[in-house]
Amino acid sequence: MNGAESLLATLAANGVDVCFANPGTSEMHFIAALDRVAGVRCVLGLAESVATGAADGYYRMARRPAATLLHLGPGLGNGIANLHNAGKARSGIVNIVGDHALAHRRFESPLRSDVEAIAAPVSHWLKTSASSLEVARDGAQALAATRDGALGRIATLILPADTAWGPGGEPVLAPPPNVPAAPQASAVRAAANVLTELGSRAVLLLGASGVGERAREAAAAIAARTGCRLLAEFYNARMPGGRGRVRVDRLPYGVEAAVEKLAGAERLVLAGAAEPIAFFAYPGKPSELKPPGCRTLVLAEARDDVPAALEALRDELGATAARVTAPDRSFDIEALRNAGALSADVVGDVLAALLPENAIVVDEAVSSGRAFGPCFAAAAPHDWLAVMGGAIGFGLPAALGAALGAPGRPVLALEGDGSAMYTPQALWSIAREGLPVLAVIFANRAYRILQGELNGMGAAVGGPKAAAMLRLDQPSIDWVALARGLGVPGGRAQTAGDLVREVERGFASGGPYLIEVVL
Amino acid sequence: MNGAESLLATLAANGVDVCFANPGTSEMHFIAALDRVAGVRCVLGLAESVATGAADGYYRMARRPAATLLHLGPGLGNGIANLHNAGKARSGIVNIVGDHALAHRRFESPLRSDVEAIAAPVSHWLKTSASSLEVARDGAQALAATRDGALGRIATLILPADTAWGPGGEPVLAPPPNVPAAPQASAVRAAANVLTELGSRAVLLLGASGVGERAREAAAAIAARTGCRLLAEFYNARMPGGRGRVRVDRLPYGVEAAVEKLAGAERLVLAGAAEPIAFFAYPGKPSELKPPGCRTLVLAEARDDVPAALEALRDELGATAARVTAPDRSFDIEALRNAGALSADVVGDVLAALLPENAIVVDEAVSSGRAFGPCFAAAAPHDWLAVMGGAIGFGLPAALGAALGAPGRPVLALEGDGSAMYTPQALWSIAREGLPVLAVIFANRAYRILQGELNGMGAAVGGPKAAAMLRLDQPSIDWVALARGLGVPGGRAQTAGDLVREVERGFASGGPYLIEVVL
Repeated sequence: MNGAESLLATLAANGVDVCFANPGTSEMHFIAALDRVAGVRCVLGLAESVATGAADGYYRMARRPAATLLHLGPGLGNGIANLHNAGKARSGIVNIVGDHALAHRRFESPLRSDVEAIAAPVSHWLKTSASSLEVARDGAQALAATRDGALGRIATLILPADTAWGPGGEPVLAPPPNVPAAPQASAVRAAANVLTELGSRAVLLLGASGVGERAREAAAAIAARTGCRLLAEFYNARMPGGRGRVRVDRLPYGVEAAVEKLAGAERLVLAGAAEPIAFFAYPGKPSELKPPGCRTLVLAEARDDVPAALEALRDELGATAARVTAPDRSFDIEALRNAGALSADVVGDVLAALLPENAIVVDEAVSSGRAFGPCFAAAAPHDWLAVMGGAIGFGLPAALGAALGAPGRPVLALEGDGSAMYTPQALWSIAREGLPVLAVIFANRAYRILQGELNGMGAAVGGPKAAAMLRLDQPSIDWVALARGLGVPGGRAQTAGDLVREVERGFASGGPYLIEVVL
Repeated sequence: MNGAESLLATLAANGVDVCFANPGTSEMHFIAALDRVAGVRCVLGLAESVATGAADGYYRMARRPAATLLHLGPGLGNGIANLHNAGKARSGIVNIVGDHALAHRRFESPLRSDVEAIAAPVSHWLKTSASSLEVARDGAQALAATRDGALGRIATLILPADTAWGPGGEPVLAPPPNVPAAPQASAVRAAANVLTELGSRAVLLLGASGVGERAREAAAAIAARTGCRLLAEFYNARMPGGRGRVRVDRLPYGVEAAVEKLAGAERLVLAGAAEPIAFFAYPGKPSELKPPGCRTLVLAEARDDVPAALEALRDELGATAARVTAPDRSFDIEALRNAGALSADVVGDVLAALLPENAIVVDEAVSSGRAFGPCFAAAAPHDWLAVMGGAIGFGLPAALGAALGAPGRPVLALEGDGSAMYTPQALWSIAREGLPVLAVIFANRAYRILQGELNGMGAAVGGPKAAAMLRLDQPSIDWVALARGLGVPGGRAQTAGDLVREVERGFASGGPYLIEVVL
């Protein structure tokens, strides 16, 4: 057993069953080990951003880390954006990066780079294996480092080529991760007092595992009992939604709207959420969204057992279940089929109406997707995965990973055309693995979000050169041709009738499908 | 004039006329400035790797830096691989990265990251602007930092959003760069003595500007006079080639072949070249390619005036011009048209035969392109640009940049299908700018290079799982459809006749064109 085999066996022994790889020469022994060590399915991405984004999506559904396999500093570089997103989503990943053999690293070869320095900004844990005999132990340490209570972490293990090809040790079991902290009685009592005293002048803000079903049911009971306002963060790594589930409004994305939503709040009670901060800074607008003078009370940190904390608070208050679900609403698919022109509402309704039971929605629609919330509240029950670090190019890779992390569940990937162009390579991997992913591309032929941001920034000029930088026409991207080129069939929708037909076709196919929605 | 405008005016005043951009919210004031400050053409890339690779290709042809414009840490991350390549190519780039406003950076917003830490491994110079009033001065410093003698450098300027939107200063002229060092008489005399004494037991190794035409003519005269062996490095940022030009063999890529080529050498004389090092380390193979005991003499460093040093050496030796050009060879295009099946030789001959005068060849064909050297020696005069840092995904972006850096010259981009899949987004920018780029994709449906490297690594197993990681079929990529999706017309070649027809069509079109060569 060589070092690579000992690492692969360690991964398998600890329950890592998928590796998203874009390997190079220095990773060849790891690749060769795939035929000698059972238990890890290796999924090829044609760009590293596919591998790292897929690992993020995988973790969110499987609740256990996947491994990645990247090639030296530049390969890692290509994966950084989605590692950033995964880190912000608190997804656990064993991020394996090959490097030159230890003795070769001192030479100025073309691919020499400081892999550790490139990895550090996106790694919670980082180590370079120093010997093939230690690779298994290092792998087990990396695995242990992917968990911090309820949160995942990015553990980067750098694997010099000779630590892969030299003699390996025995596989090593990782120590059990620390469990999420139980509710703190003092925090629960303090929250009960604040919410009881302030009522609607308090906001209970949910984040991380606080947006799950159990947590939301407890939170709804708390709100019904105390009259406090209940909100979730705007972006959530995984948020259950749809019919019959407790509805929780999200804090809006826009600074003005968020400030207005929090107006009058004297206290924020955080349950897995962070202090609410504007996504970007804008001239003359605040970074902090809560009102001046509003204080914060932490019921539970994101790494803690947030659902248990909310249930403890509910019990402390003597509250009983209060299911505030979305208003009953049914879709008239025949009316939608004849709705004619595509508006955001019509698109949202069609997608929500046709969403299969237990689907996973990956949301990177950016500007086009903002209006979909109310539509999907009435859709079949589903999980909603948002890009958490703001780095676009997450969606299609995450759809790949989510489909592998929750086998059999259909995946709907909502993509802006601008967003999807960062990582179209993921379509090929989705085709190769034959996954039930329906990718819907909102083709507004623009960085529409930036057209708004240009104004929001007070940078408005409307000159032709600036405008040209935000337009994706000339040429317009033919998404159906592009997808076919990558092995994914698809169709185009210009009317509501087209969209109904294509969405039905896509979900019915049971395999990959892409729809270009012309807006 | 705000900070962004003062920076743009500074770039323009110092001769930077192109900016390769993939902007986001924090860069909106820079984008808005494009309509207020003349002189900089902004070229949109749909992924950051396009922008950074294009800046590399641009510099190699224009011999002056372009700017990039990237969005925060993750955007920079996506650009790292091609910044790595550009750094190894010694291309100068003003790498501008937007960041959150200074006051916003302390908050844990989704896009917060340590931009400086991400930039440091690929930057020769790095600064974060601290005030909008200082941005122009910082820009001028960055420009000055893009040059070190004959070499370019990566100068990263981080631009917090408020330094762009706040009041700016006046544009600033950069100080003149230090000029490449003139030949050192002692080094010239020492080299003359060594080469005269050792003859064929010495190797004169050319790199950097030592592979240019003037330098090569001097080197050929030196070799004719002394009997020394003459070689160029395997990878060169820009190497003139073709009919009538001095032919210089390159040190082979493979370790065994390179070691054999240098066997018997007692002294290496370096003219712009580095110590020859294996690209990768392999079990049981050396990292250093020169024979044990072989010593090195530096005639000129890459940053020095290498052509002048070679001419001084030629004069010291009293050598006279000796043009060792490639053997005369003409192509029979009609015979090629009827050659039937496509082999590497036939493909090389067709491309070389039909190459227009003064073309630029961007080489990222990896395995497929290795055999082309002899063919292109007989082609029309051209410049050959290789990927210098080993990070694939360079070719199509570099073709974009090279076409803009040498307006009017046709560009032939030789791409492996594996390589081209890292940055297919560049095709869209090439289409948008209407550039004369012919992209030839060698579709062997595999990471063919890695199939060889797997064996070269001694990692051979031939198991199906390892094999699957190196194959790009299932599904096969339809490059013609993919290119059409991105606005580039194209065709497929399965026979020599197809290839002749498609290459003629592609070059005749005068615009972007893509050929999928099915191997």
